[in-house]
Amino acid sequence: MRNLERLLRPRSVAVIGASSDAARTSGRPIAYLQKHGYAGNIYPVNPRNDTIAGLSCYPDVASLPEAPDVGMVLLSAERAIQAVRDLAQRGAGAAIVLASGFTETGPEGASRQQQLQEAAGDMPLLGPNTIGLVNLTDGITLSATGALEMDDLHTGSIAVVSQSGGILGSLLSRAASRGIGFSTLVSTGNEADLDVSDLIETLLDDPATSVIALYIEGLRKPEAFRAAALRAARLGKPLVAFKVGRSESGARSAVSHTGALAGADSMYDALFAQTGVIRAQTFADLLDIPAALSTRRRLNGNRIAILTSTGGAGTLVADSCGMMGLDTPAPDAQTAARLDALSSAEAVLSRNPIDLTLAGVKPEVLRGTLDALLDSPTYDGAVVIAGSSSLQHPDLISGVVSDCMQRTEKPVLVYVSPHAPSILSGLNRQGIPAFAAPESCAAVFAAMLATGKAGQGAPAPAPIVALPTLPSGPLNEAESKTLFAHYGVTPVREAVAATPEQAAQLAAGLGDKVVIKALSRQLAHKSEVGGVAVGVAQADVARCSQAMLAAVAAATSAPLEGLLVQEMVAGGTEVILGFHRDPQLGPAILLGMGGVAAELIQDTALRLLPLSRADAESMARELKTWPLLDGYRGRPRCDVPALVDAILAFAGMAQALDGKLAEAEINPLFVLPEGQGVKAADGVVILR
Amino acid sequence: MRNLERLLRPRSVAVIGASSDAARTSGRPIAYLQKHGYAGNIYPVNPRNDTIAGLSCYPDVASLPEAPDVGMVLLSAERAIQAVRDLAQRGAGAAIVLASGFTETGPEGASRQQQLQEAAGDMPLLGPNTIGLVNLTDGITLSATGALEMDDLHTGSIAVVSQSGGILGSLLSRAASRGIGFSTLVSTGNEADLDVSDLIETLLDDPATSVIALYIEGLRKPEAFRAAALRAARLGKPLVAFKVGRSESGARSAVSHTGALAGADSMYDALFAQTGVIRAQTFADLLDIPAALSTRRRLNGNRIAILTSTGGAGTLVADSCGMMGLDTPAPDAQTAARLDALSSAEAVLSRNPIDLTLAGVKPEVLRGTLDALLDSPTYDGAVVIAGSSSLQHPDLISGVVSDCMQRTEKPVLVYVSPHAPSILSGLNRQGIPAFAAPESCAAVFAAMLATGKAGQGAPAPAPIVALPTLPSGPLNEAESKTLFAHYGVTPVREAVAATPEQAAQLAAGLGDKVVIKALSRQLAHKSEVGGVAVGVAQADVARCSQAMLAAVAAATSAPLEGLLVQEMVAGGTEVILGFHRDPQLGPAILLGMGGVAAELIQDTALRLLPLSRADAESMARELKTWPLLDGYRGRPRCDVPALVDAILAFAGMAQALDGKLAEAEINPLFVLPEGQGVKAADGVVILR
Repeated sequence: MRNLERLLRPRSVAVIGASSDAARTSGRPIAYLQKHGYAGNIYPVNPRNDTIAGLSCYPDVASLPEAPDVGMVLLSAERAIQAVRDLAQRGAGAAIVLASGFTETGPEGASRQQQLQEAAGDMPLLGPNTIGLVNLTDGITLSATGALEMDDLHTGSIAVVSQSGGILGSLLSRAASRGIGFSTLVSTGNEADLDVSDLIETLLDDPATSVIALYIEGLRKPEAFRAAALRAARLGKPLVAFKVGRSESGARSAVSHTGALAGADSMYDALFAQTGVIRAQTFADLLDIPAALSTRRRLNGNRIAILTSTGGAGTLVADSCGMMGLDTPAPDAQTAARLDALSSAEAVLSRNPIDLTLAGVKPEVLRGTLDALLDSPTYDGAVVIAGSSSLQHPDLISGVVSDCMQRTEKPVLVYVSPHAPSILSGLNRQGIPAFAAPESCAAVFAAMLATGKAGQGAPAPAPIVALPTLPSGPLNEAESKTLFAHYGVTPVREAVAATPEQAAQLAAGLGDKVVIKALSRQLAHKSEVGGVAVGVAQADVARCSQAMLAAVAAATSAPLEGLLVQEMVAGGTEVILGFHRDPQLGPAILLGMGGVAAELIQDTALRLLPLSRADAESMARELKTWPLLDGYRGRPRCDVPALVDAILAFAGMAQALDGKLAEAEINPLFVLPEGQGVKAADGVVILR
Repeated sequence: MRNLERLLRPRSVAVIGASSDAARTSGRPIAYLQKHGYAGNIYPVNPRNDTIAGLSCYPDVASLPEAPDVGMVLLSAERAIQAVRDLAQRGAGAAIVLASGFTETGPEGASRQQQLQEAAGDMPLLGPNTIGLVNLTDGITLSATGALEMDDLHTGSIAVVSQSGGILGSLLSRAASRGIGFSTLVSTGNEADLDVSDLIETLLDDPATSVIALYIEGLRKPEAFRAAALRAARLGKPLVAFKVGRSESGARSAVSHTGALAGADSMYDALFAQTGVIRAQTFADLLDIPAALSTRRRLNGNRIAILTSTGGAGTLVADSCGMMGLDTPAPDAQTAARLDALSSAEAVLSRNPIDLTLAGVKPEVLRGTLDALLDSPTYDGAVVIAGSSSLQHPDLISGVVSDCMQRTEKPVLVYVSPHAPSILSGLNRQGIPAFAAPESCAAVFAAMLATGKAGQGAPAPAPIVALPTLPSGPLNEAESKTLFAHYGVTPVREAVAATPEQAAQLAAGLGDKVVIKALSRQLAHKSEVGGVAVGVAQADVARCSQAMLAAVAAATSAPLEGLLVQEMVAGGTEVILGFHRDPQLGPAILLGMGGVAAELIQDTALRLLPLSRADAESMARELKTWPLLDGYRGRPRCDVPALVDAILAFAGMAQALDGKLAEAEINPLFVLPEGQGVKAADGVVILR
């Protein structure tokens, strides 16, 4: 882990290429440092000026009075390289390069970025193509973002790490208007050196930060991200990520079936699920969820009380909560009695939303009711609705909610129904999460419920299995299943025969009826050339085998390696178990429900290697058709523990074989009724 | 259709129970009428005042100088009844009753509402429990909503009909801050008389209204709503509905399988799909979509150009568009060449989003680029991103977009990335739809694409079929299928046998293997008592029938009516066709894909009776597993035209039998390969 202390909290900043014109991008950083009260030393570097903004200006890095903690480089892409080299040689703590014109522009820019990186050497480098870093906790603005023109920036415990500078500016500006504060915001730009993961690791050590919002276009170091995210989960500092590229999922094409099912975006879902990262579904969520989590309150159940003085808005919030799987039960008898004692004639208190009508405008009624709801064991959290009457009484709700929150650990949100920006920002500034969209309340509660539930169970280490030397290229079906069996996935009973006669002999021990398959590592789609026969009676095995050999020979030139005779599997549910290597995120395991209907709705679950037992269990339960495994409508329950073992065994194989494995898939894997295990009926392996 | 001219555009308003204290709810309506410049006569009615707000006050309705066009009743529930009676007797044009305390409070309130309704007689009545009506076009505010405290209400061509007064106020207040204007807003409250449909019909005739936003909790007159919505579609005045109660779907329990699948909320989806009503998915959509549609521009294809000066925000919008099924293709060669001619060195113009970087701040570059994109046959619409630089140049984008829009019919939206309320409202006021959420741009384009595509094809009239007198209660399977056949749904070949021996004789003509079933109108689940045998060889029919009779007799006391012998159906895809009667919305037809996996994901489509051919066709294509009917992965394509005929025939039966039909379901209906038709293999009918 890199020590970025000097970058985040520099005692001195050199601004290379500073301009004396504060209206220009190169004039802004010093203007902003001064505006927001930076207390350290500022060294403008520009050979054409003696002073800038009242500060002594230096002709070059060499002539600076000390090695600066941070060098902000405002020069063009070409000239930035030398400046970074100078800073590294001078012993600067870090460099920030704002210029664009690097990898994002093509091969020439990529080679320029390579030079920049070499120039930095061991010195941490932020950017290039970054808008910089804003440490609001300590009043250190190392950025040119126009959002710093604002005066009313609030400090808070939300950190932001964004791969886009524009998004950083947008969040800063939107949060300011909402009364939401930040600790530190960093734009990582092209990530020539420091990437999202480095910044997360650093910010997890920042005592001023309790939650980190991430804007991600793609991860350059997925393993480092995973480690950082798991550490965040352990520390109870949640990560909330908005990841773009969602709608390109499905556009990828891949050779194997598994590959086609696993779009890159679903890989991110897998990564986030495994590491407890909360995925923001809308851009608004990226501010709303951290704002609520920064109160450090969590939801311990899904039951929400809604307190309103206006019917429609309460219904809106209740409906949105229901859409996110939250429940809004009516008050229990004891709570209802307590509410009745407070009630006016008009109020309708026995339902949820609890509608106080205009009586809710009286502070004592509002306070008593909210206290009763928060005391009730029926509710895990509450939403208070600020209706149009709150426009006339702007402090009523904030006063009451603030008092009530001191008496409970349960989260309380406020939904503001009319357009009332000052009420929203006032509430947020007082630490009461307040929202203008009913969907935000629901998304926030769902996040508060999910937080802290990940990272359970250590991933299994790669198993050590003694294997014969493995070849390169495709294995045949029998070899594939032998390999799976080495790692603990039980295959169907089967045997390889060289001739139809031997097939008949070997079939004898495999039941009344058997399956016969043409065996060839060259034959990817054997059923299409007549290479599969199902339900063959013992008496017909030889004849059927003979016919199959003839049919396959006629249809393809792939050399046959024999006949595979298998037991028929009766009962159970068919699933697919596949290995997938994402170009960005690396190796993963896919579990899919079998059958064409399940395939059409892409009923699959993905997890990145390595898997924990909890990961494997959650994969099965994540399937939309999970009830097919769980005894739906009188069907026998399937042996889910055996399926979980098989997922872990398959994953262990993929881990152990590491770079050796190109493709692997079991399709179908029969999950038999409870206590009877699983059986791999067909499979493919391609080795490198 | 009611004539509500006097209600919407009254030349005189009596305010019954007016208060001289403008701070009280009963003081507000006159204060608001005066504040917003009402030009007609205002008559306060209150026996305790001589004047109110400078106006002569009347002791009662009888002493008014004329019959008022509108009587606003501000009295309590109890006293409102007499006031409404007085208004009706005096010949008032309409009454508006604000008081709550009617059906929403229970049986006592319901009887009070009944009295109110009787008191109104033929006089149109809005409410009770309404916040009233605001006609901004003509400056007539008949409402107590606190939102009328605002000065900056804008007129526009969006009308609002809301079942909640609080939501009306919320929309009015939110729209004002966004620069979005309204024609007329109406809260229908308890709908004792006038309901949502009446107001829609009236507003469709309002030349100032081009689009209607609806907030709906439930429809009291679904047929009137359907007629109004279809008329709206014909007139090209779209309806945009936010309907709550979404999360209670699935909570309903119903006896038949079809009933369990058809939750009430999905019935609304069906209604909206059939009538071309656009469903707002978020509360923000309810303002965003009408705001965009009120420009009267429509999207003729799904290809969007995104023009930005800041990378991150462009990516956000592109990703959101992709999530809604919109495409963001790169520019065609000719357009790319035109863009290149305008380009600066830094800009990246060959992709989409088209990123102008800071060059986009120059008006001539922005204008030339946007013109080129809108001229291009590659794009059906465009989004322009206002980045943080727009804060310094607030009029740049509005000026350029406004000019460019005059040269094209294509829609252009603006996404504002920083918090910039004045830019947002300025753009909207100039007729340029502008949004602060990337998801809003995508939702708006999707709505612009969907608008005008519904109401195709007239619903089929109920067929006239001569039938024998139908009994009450359940039909047996054979009778059910005979009934279906009468209306045109082909059953499997089958025959009813009285004895095992006769079963064997009748089986002879039905193929090598047959299906045998126990026939009884009392036996709902015959397979559970051994009453179904599939794939019975001809030789085994008698023996198997005998065994079945014994097994069923042992398991149940339901009287048997014989044995049903059926052909086996090979090939094809199994679907379910069901009849469902929603307590709110009435009779409907359900199409579901067969198989447990499809059932688990509720792969169904619903339409309300009567159905048009277009409705039936869209039902099949709406299924998630539609490819199973359309030749997925080398499967034979199914006879979809025959399925569509069967849906229409089944729907025709339901229409013709009208109130006589309690339940009806065909499960499974086999859809055979192309040209081979469909076959109903099993079915249930319960008659009233």
